[in-house]
Amino acid sequence: MNAPVVGNPRMRSYLAHAAQFKSGAESPRDFLEACLANLNTWEPKVGAFVNLNIEGARQAADLATARWRAGAPLSPIDGMPIGIKDIIETADMPTEMGSPLFAGWRSQKDAASVAALRQAGAVILGKTVTTEFAASEPRSTCNPWNLAHTPGGSSSGSAAAVAAGMISAGLGTQVIGSTIRPASFCGCVGFKPTVGALNREGSHDYQSQSCTGVLAATLPDAWQVAYEIAQRVGGDAGTPGLMGPEHAPAPVKPRRLAFLETSGWAVASEAAKASMQDTLRRLLEAGVEIRTGRDDADVSAIETELADAFTLSNRVNSFETRWFIDGCAARDASLLSQSMRDRLEQAKGMTLADYRGWLKERTSVRALYAELADTCDACVTLSAPGPAPQGLQTTGNPQFAVPSSLLGIPALSLPLFMLDGMPLGLQVLGYANGDANAFAIGAWLMKEFGSESG
Amino acid sequence: MNAPVVGNPRMRSYLAHAAQFKSGAESPRDFLEACLANLNTWEPKVGAFVNLNIEGARQAADLATARWRAGAPLSPIDGMPIGIKDIIETADMPTEMGSPLFAGWRSQKDAASVAALRQAGAVILGKTVTTEFAASEPRSTCNPWNLAHTPGGSSSGSAAAVAAGMISAGLGTQVIGSTIRPASFCGCVGFKPTVGALNREGSHDYQSQSCTGVLAATLPDAWQVAYEIAQRVGGDAGTPGLMGPEHAPAPVKPRRLAFLETSGWAVASEAAKASMQDTLRRLLEAGVEIRTGRDDADVSAIETELADAFTLSNRVNSFETRWFIDGCAARDASLLSQSMRDRLEQAKGMTLADYRGWLKERTSVRALYAELADTCDACVTLSAPGPAPQGLQTTGNPQFAVPSSLLGIPALSLPLFMLDGMPLGLQVLGYANGDANAFAIGAWLMKEFGSESG
Repeated sequence: MNAPVVGNPRMRSYLAHAAQFKSGAESPRDFLEACLANLNTWEPKVGAFVNLNIEGARQAADLATARWRAGAPLSPIDGMPIGIKDIIETADMPTEMGSPLFAGWRSQKDAASVAALRQAGAVILGKTVTTEFAASEPRSTCNPWNLAHTPGGSSSGSAAAVAAGMISAGLGTQVIGSTIRPASFCGCVGFKPTVGALNREGSHDYQSQSCTGVLAATLPDAWQVAYEIAQRVGGDAGTPGLMGPEHAPAPVKPRRLAFLETSGWAVASEAAKASMQDTLRRLLEAGVEIRTGRDDADVSAIETELADAFTLSNRVNSFETRWFIDGCAARDASLLSQSMRDRLEQAKGMTLADYRGWLKERTSVRALYAELADTCDACVTLSAPGPAPQGLQTTGNPQFAVPSSLLGIPALSLPLFMLDGMPLGLQVLGYANGDANAFAIGAWLMKEFGSESG
Repeated sequence: MNAPVVGNPRMRSYLAHAAQFKSGAESPRDFLEACLANLNTWEPKVGAFVNLNIEGARQAADLATARWRAGAPLSPIDGMPIGIKDIIETADMPTEMGSPLFAGWRSQKDAASVAALRQAGAVILGKTVTTEFAASEPRSTCNPWNLAHTPGGSSSGSAAAVAAGMISAGLGTQVIGSTIRPASFCGCVGFKPTVGALNREGSHDYQSQSCTGVLAATLPDAWQVAYEIAQRVGGDAGTPGLMGPEHAPAPVKPRRLAFLETSGWAVASEAAKASMQDTLRRLLEAGVEIRTGRDDADVSAIETELADAFTLSNRVNSFETRWFIDGCAARDASLLSQSMRDRLEQAKGMTLADYRGWLKERTSVRALYAELADTCDACVTLSAPGPAPQGLQTTGNPQFAVPSSLLGIPALSLPLFMLDGMPLGLQVLGYANGDANAFAIGAWLMKEFGSESG
């Protein structure tokens, strides 16, 4: 066990180097080698990866280098080092899902998102640590800002690896808080798109709320990764896929934002709440109108409906995953965590009729939230109740992250706060298929309130 | 190569034996042994299975036998011998997808539908032959009615095995015509539910039109299998799942039916058309009003919109599967069929914008069709242009089957016609989530026009 250290990880934006790749001053292979140097430094402490394909990554980076030299990169992310959450299938590496039941298991194919990334020239460096089946049981990844603290979950490894500059972006997923929370705890950008916006085929998350997301060094890196995936493989089959422009939307100052306390506010730390309130004050000073549940009936109605977002989400998810966990238990229940066995027990009595009722509840909350678009450009809140808590036994509280999951809306975690040397995210919540709009507002918030990035 | 024989296969309804299981006059194990006797007779000629788990099936049948004896079967299908199309995952057998690229591949889990069947006590006898990745390239299954004729595809093995009485039901899938067509050619009942009505997770069909379906000896067997799946694992995540009663709907005489010619009529054989027209005449005589595109503007409008259902379906499917086929080609293109390589080539230029346009077209046809529910209880047409054609090089023409796929509606193929010793189905097309209604009408048609079954 390494002694806990306070880190000073530096993220590595790939897009910020585009000019150098174009000019030839730097190559994608150079960029990868710098990432590998970070990997050498950080990976032994952080443990973000379960499998690496360094040789394959170097070959891919060399091919990207040749394409940039020829003036013909496959995409703006041609050569970008990327990590893939280990519930998402890769042809060249096992997909172990954070479970001994799938140790060494190979799907013999790339998931749709991974296939798209390779077509775009991205360099798939490795598989990043996930909690057990992307649920709540943590694996051993540490937070690079302080190794004694959780990186969050379930996309633990992608967030930690991005934060430590081992990769520019990582794929994650979110069904409760699995992209927004680790992004917040590790101080990177987290993008949980509109549900279905990135093709989920070949990703082992069986829930209707689940969504492939991106953890990245900057907003432009996050957008570009998502955009290149959607252009090549679309969203979930039958959906329009991620909507928006071919490069990250430019900053747009919002006219009006809703501040959502959510159920997270009651458990947020004083320092976190103070940071949020300070941001709201600065937004008002900048001329942005702020609505809250205390002064606006529409926002108040949504707060009420979202008060138990976690319970409703858990019920929906439990019914949808029961068959899978049950099958795992039949194979060898002793290889499931206690929390997974508890989850299964809890799900046993659920009926299809129950499930249909919960879907109706969810549809109704979604409809109510959608109406807010008439008056507010987006919503803001914290990404988590505070910085990453100490200890690796839990992945932290997801209450601030769950509303976007339940609502199926895009959410961004912006690394805007630092509390006692640990990062904390400001969260932007958009509207279904309005991912680009959320990015534009997120970009403005980063410009106004962030330090330089990349 | 066996010499072509004209068979006289006999199907084996499991539900028709329920009283015997209850009284103890017959056991599920007895039933299985009779199926295995048929397997010994027919399987060497027909080749319906790629993998069998006979020992596992016997153990499962013995457990079912004990439960029936104790008066506590898990469900009406407790002990039913079932085959699983080999694109649907099973924990105890490989899932080879009709492709040498997945020879021996194991998912290490049961698909949701298979998990549900086991929970309901069903006996999973084996994996049934599918065309390559459930597309058009046939494998070697023969039609039990005449070994020189195709069984149809892509759910070839499930249809042939049901027809030959080796199993009472088989899971299939349909994205173009893969359940209705083999059911028609093999003379069994085919049920292609409302899209999404049976949980598709763990089934390797990546298309928004694709749907898990059931091939069975009788309508009650088909309904019960589908019902037991939906009750335990629902439909595709986020959908309400199959709607309807806990036992097969009783016959209901329709007041008004629409006859859809579809693009299939132009290629249908004279004998097939005569059979259909005779049925329409008998329906009229029975007091059922019939609307056609020749005398009804609404039906005519739908016929027009469905005229190129095949092309639109193919476009949607091609975009949605391109990433997967492309990945297979990257592994070893020589292990793909020529037709699959052609399909990939054709898909290469497709863009996300194209795809969005096709989805809009499909949504618009679906909306138009849905309006028909105001005036017609269901639609009827042939299931195929004629009986199974000679030769095993193609799986036959799917034009009659594709409308239900495009529309996402329930469809039934009823084994009502015999032409020159080969079966042909009458097709009933219902409305989205009105699967039970289609069954009730199907049951009435079987009662009025069918010979005894089971």
